[in-house]
Amino acid sequence: MFTGLCAFPLTPLHQQTIDEKAFIRLLDGLTDAGVDSLGILGSTGSYAYLSREQRKRVVQVAKAHAGSTPMMVGVGAIATSEVLRLVEDAQQAGADALLLPMMSYQPLFAEEIYAFYEEVCRHASVPVCLYDNPRTTHVTLSDELQGQIAALPAIASIKIPGLPAPQASERVAALRRHLPGGVTLGVSGDVRATAGLQAGCEVWYSVCGGLFPRISLALVKAICHGDAAQVAALNKQLAPLWRCFDRYGGSLRVVAAAAAILGLCDPDSLPRPLLPLGEEACRDVAAALHGLA
Amino acid sequence: MFTGLCAFPLTPLHQQTIDEKAFIRLLDGLTDAGVDSLGILGSTGSYAYLSREQRKRVVQVAKAHAGSTPMMVGVGAIATSEVLRLVEDAQQAGADALLLPMMSYQPLFAEEIYAFYEEVCRHASVPVCLYDNPRTTHVTLSDELQGQIAALPAIASIKIPGLPAPQASERVAALRRHLPGGVTLGVSGDVRATAGLQAGCEVWYSVCGGLFPRISLALVKAICHGDAAQVAALNKQLAPLWRCFDRYGGSLRVVAAAAAILGLCDPDSLPRPLLPLGEEACRDVAAALHGLA
Repeated sequence: MFTGLCAFPLTPLHQQTIDEKAFIRLLDGLTDAGVDSLGILGSTGSYAYLSREQRKRVVQVAKAHAGSTPMMVGVGAIATSEVLRLVEDAQQAGADALLLPMMSYQPLFAEEIYAFYEEVCRHASVPVCLYDNPRTTHVTLSDELQGQIAALPAIASIKIPGLPAPQASERVAALRRHLPGGVTLGVSGDVRATAGLQAGCEVWYSVCGGLFPRISLALVKAICHGDAAQVAALNKQLAPLWRCFDRYGGSLRVVAAAAAILGLCDPDSLPRPLLPLGEEACRDVAAALHGLA
Repeated sequence: MFTGLCAFPLTPLHQQTIDEKAFIRLLDGLTDAGVDSLGILGSTGSYAYLSREQRKRVVQVAKAHAGSTPMMVGVGAIATSEVLRLVEDAQQAGADALLLPMMSYQPLFAEEIYAFYEEVCRHASVPVCLYDNPRTTHVTLSDELQGQIAALPAIASIKIPGLPAPQASERVAALRRHLPGGVTLGVSGDVRATAGLQAGCEVWYSVCGGLFPRISLALVKAICHGDAAQVAALNKQLAPLWRCFDRYGGSLRVVAAAAAILGLCDPDSLPRPLLPLGEEACRDVAAALHGLA
């Protein structure tokens, strides 16, 4: 399941509680489009803001609507004890894989990070994707450390940050040298996904794919087929969305605004302290959506 | 209560559950020494790693042993909804004040940070201390923003990071210009506490004070009295401890090791993923303790 398009849907809220109807609408859009896998409770799914009970419910709802689409579930938390509880919940609810970031409060030593992955992977009965997201976690994982962690039998993939186009191939090759065969690399940071996939990443862990699965699937397909003209055409369509990601503090608030504009969820669907984008930004997002209809 | 020495005890664990006996030993040491206030569930009290139920219990135990010593309680969490639950728990358990950091997962806009403090302060029935700790939260609060937040009626104090000696007075004066009268400034980052207090901070929010209350009280007193010789003598005694803080990833792991060396808690008292210091570091810490007997 760690190839192709892994789509990360929002977990939309209504009055700060899970909006199950809206969540199901999003899930149905993804399974209908035929994404290769679902990434439930990723950063876009607001995992870090939801209680254990909320997260358990989200996974249950997702499983009930995933059909035959494999489902990866984010299980990040600051305390290892909480991560272990979330692993158990996710597995009991039918997760096909786990997405495991290293969150931190106190800065961590490399040996603490390794011991964390070792302990959690020992409790996992499904494959684990190492989630490297220094922008949100402020934890930096060296290539050597990623290699050590990837050697744990449970690790099947690594979700890496977006890659700047000029260095993408070198970066992927450098990291790959530390990894055992069979561990796939997946690029996130949607703005730079094309560079990552062209550099040899096997999967796109995609925020864009969580709301716009068809154009995202088309992009993955065009890159796989080496269809440069189609890749360029699709990226031209997506460019206004990428610009909104850059302009409005990342992808999350923009995708939440886009989902609301499309009538799929409440305009105020993000967990506090996050606020919805303002009117002017929403107009920009709406304009970006014209090209994606 | 926002003056003098506010002592921040560890929340020691035994086999990853709260070690109430050890916690009570630490609390008794602080009230016996006569610290001005207690800082329960600060960063040193591992607030970020404990569940809501654990935190509720810690506050209850602390209240039962605080006697007449006022007690401030850390209520930080990533989600506002969780912070509001923690505020209610802490207040019901008898907190005299709340310590409120801005934790984050997604990078935040200034207006989101202000709205967070505004909302939480509206729910607080006791004074609130704004906790500025960019080292652990990775949230940076500008002086202007701290001033805006400090103007909220509930805010009584700001816990600021340690101040480098040469710029301490300027830094305190610059921040103070943005604050309403009556909001005290408290310095943390124990290595640099003397500089902060000499620059006019009214309180020392102290990790060192949470384990070594007598020497910490003596230092606060000597600084208040302008007794330069005594200040120098006490800092000379404390210098090996400060060096350990610098050398071993901050104060938390060092203070946990020190408490274990003194027989006050388990050698493995920190919440995973944090690991106890290794043997060599513990020998260094033990040596630092000789001067503090």
